[in-house]
Amino acid sequence: MTTTRAFAAQSATTPLAETVIDRREPGPKDVAIDILYCGVCHSDLHTARGEWGGVRFPSVPGHEIVGRVTAVGNAVTRVAVGDLAGVGCLIGSCRTCASCGEGLEQYCEGPHGFQGTYGGWADGSGENTYGGYSAAIVVDEHFVLTIAHGEEQLAGVAPLLCAGITTWSPLRHWQAGPGKKVGVVGIGGLGHMGVKLARALGAHVVAFTTSPDKKQDALDLGAHEAVLSRDRDEMKAHAGSFDLILNTVAAPHNLDAFTALLKRDGTMVLVGVPDSPHPSPSVGALIFGRKAIAGSLIGGIPETQEMLDFCAEHGIVSDIEMIRMQEIDAAYDRMLKSDVKYRFVIDMASLKD
Amino acid sequence: MTTTRAFAAQSATTPLAETVIDRREPGPKDVAIDILYCGVCHSDLHTARGEWGGVRFPSVPGHEIVGRVTAVGNAVTRVAVGDLAGVGCLIGSCRTCASCGEGLEQYCEGPHGFQGTYGGWADGSGENTYGGYSAAIVVDEHFVLTIAHGEEQLAGVAPLLCAGITTWSPLRHWQAGPGKKVGVVGIGGLGHMGVKLARALGAHVVAFTTSPDKKQDALDLGAHEAVLSRDRDEMKAHAGSFDLILNTVAAPHNLDAFTALLKRDGTMVLVGVPDSPHPSPSVGALIFGRKAIAGSLIGGIPETQEMLDFCAEHGIVSDIEMIRMQEIDAAYDRMLKSDVKYRFVIDMASLKD
Repeated sequence: MTTTRAFAAQSATTPLAETVIDRREPGPKDVAIDILYCGVCHSDLHTARGEWGGVRFPSVPGHEIVGRVTAVGNAVTRVAVGDLAGVGCLIGSCRTCASCGEGLEQYCEGPHGFQGTYGGWADGSGENTYGGYSAAIVVDEHFVLTIAHGEEQLAGVAPLLCAGITTWSPLRHWQAGPGKKVGVVGIGGLGHMGVKLARALGAHVVAFTTSPDKKQDALDLGAHEAVLSRDRDEMKAHAGSFDLILNTVAAPHNLDAFTALLKRDGTMVLVGVPDSPHPSPSVGALIFGRKAIAGSLIGGIPETQEMLDFCAEHGIVSDIEMIRMQEIDAAYDRMLKSDVKYRFVIDMASLKD
Repeated sequence: MTTTRAFAAQSATTPLAETVIDRREPGPKDVAIDILYCGVCHSDLHTARGEWGGVRFPSVPGHEIVGRVTAVGNAVTRVAVGDLAGVGCLIGSCRTCASCGEGLEQYCEGPHGFQGTYGGWADGSGENTYGGYSAAIVVDEHFVLTIAHGEEQLAGVAPLLCAGITTWSPLRHWQAGPGKKVGVVGIGGLGHMGVKLARALGAHVVAFTTSPDKKQDALDLGAHEAVLSRDRDEMKAHAGSFDLILNTVAAPHNLDAFTALLKRDGTMVLVGVPDSPHPSPSVGALIFGRKAIAGSLIGGIPETQEMLDFCAEHGIVSDIEMIRMQEIDAAYDRMLKSDVKYRFVIDMASLKD
């Protein structure tokens, strides 16, 4: 065991505060990583504040982790001491089910589901796990990503491990690319990555926002067009024209406004879970055009590596605002107001202050 | 013009009654058909009773038409006088849009949408059209189907033109077949065809019903298994196991009970439009498993012909109860109580009584 400095919520009603956690000694297949940066995801906030059921405390959030390898077990082959490395939302799965066999560990059909980087196994069994709001982490090599970006880009790489892969996975699965018209709804942490990735994949990208002042931002991020989703005329101009709409908005909203914009056989993919249900979508709107509403969950390890390599090749990182670990609660409050462009990233050096 | 006996609703509040309508003289591409049998679809009832907006009266319902060709225009090549022929839900479309080009005329993207066999163009333009509750019809050859079934099977062929194709089209599009587990929700006019067709396509078929006494019926129709959808244990035994669920139930119901039964990447296809919305489906249930809820509308002409040929080859017809034209209102009342196994078909000879 190694004691490691971390920031934890001891309960749903206490702010995050410094603590000390234990990390295991690296086994033969393990990789020990000194964490340099950790992105701040909405899931962190929901978890730390106990807004989702079944949170295990103490909770050390953080699943957008980048750092440097400090030790490897003797069976580790993919990374070496001194390498940059990343850890995303998953650090374990059954490794034997059909989904794991296809590299889609996020859909692990094993008895425990996947093991979260924080919060432990999905079914609540076994020990709690502690995430990236900490100085170091030890992870099985299978769930460690390699990073080809330059070290100066590293802080902006961190959010790729969740916001990046959550948008990449559906864009790839539903074949965003040249000749396809792709919508991205919501220009926040997820949406701004969706715009960048869909553009780099070669699609014609249209961003949808409810904020007039975000239209220019969306164009700056790479969208070919930006639409104010509350403007009926702007929306109507795109009726029946999208192959794919990636909807990143978790707040309950009228989905029919977007299914109306899909082509025949088009799909709207939801990646955000609303706290209360969306208004029930119109079945007629799906039937007249053989349209679909689907969901997509983060991404598997092979596709996460593919995304990281693609981003390194195309010079893509997240747009971030760096914070110190001690500023996390204020950052959460700002996230609730969408007051960040577009992702907070914790400089983990601050943990040693 | 030829005057033709028919049964029509003169308004939403008057019962259907005998009348006389005009049919055009066959043009060069037209086929004139003496109607022998016409199936009775729920859409007929909704239309005749004005339950859907914008119904054009007088309304002559009926879009599950089979009969014998009595005249053909000089440019007609696919059918000849004396042939058996069928007409389904569509008798016109723009013929130039992408969907028409792919033989998916039901999704016609032209300015008027498709032209219904009754009720005219989808956008309300042009003249009203009169359906199969009549002695004869004249239809452009493009929208006429050929029938390879024996004449003695003809009454049971009629419902294939709507109930058959409405289930066939999604079963084919989502690739029901050997190695696939397919659910069919609701064992009525549509569902009983869904069970027969999915079974004949080689899928493992599970029928879902709310009626304990329909379980045996579903097995008799060809389902490998029948599940009482109100029984939590019976449902749970199928969790996460379906490639495709064809949901034929138009009454508002809890869709989550069925999305829970889909495999990763599975799709539930809705073919019924509820009068009031279904409870809003759980987004989380879609996200955890990359599942989809989609819609599907009847079918195009080439796939309707494919279905009819497949059914002739496999000896498939609808299970029907024959009625006289004069019994239509009583039949509607029984349909509202699901008191029919599984489709009423009008013997059009009764119109001459």
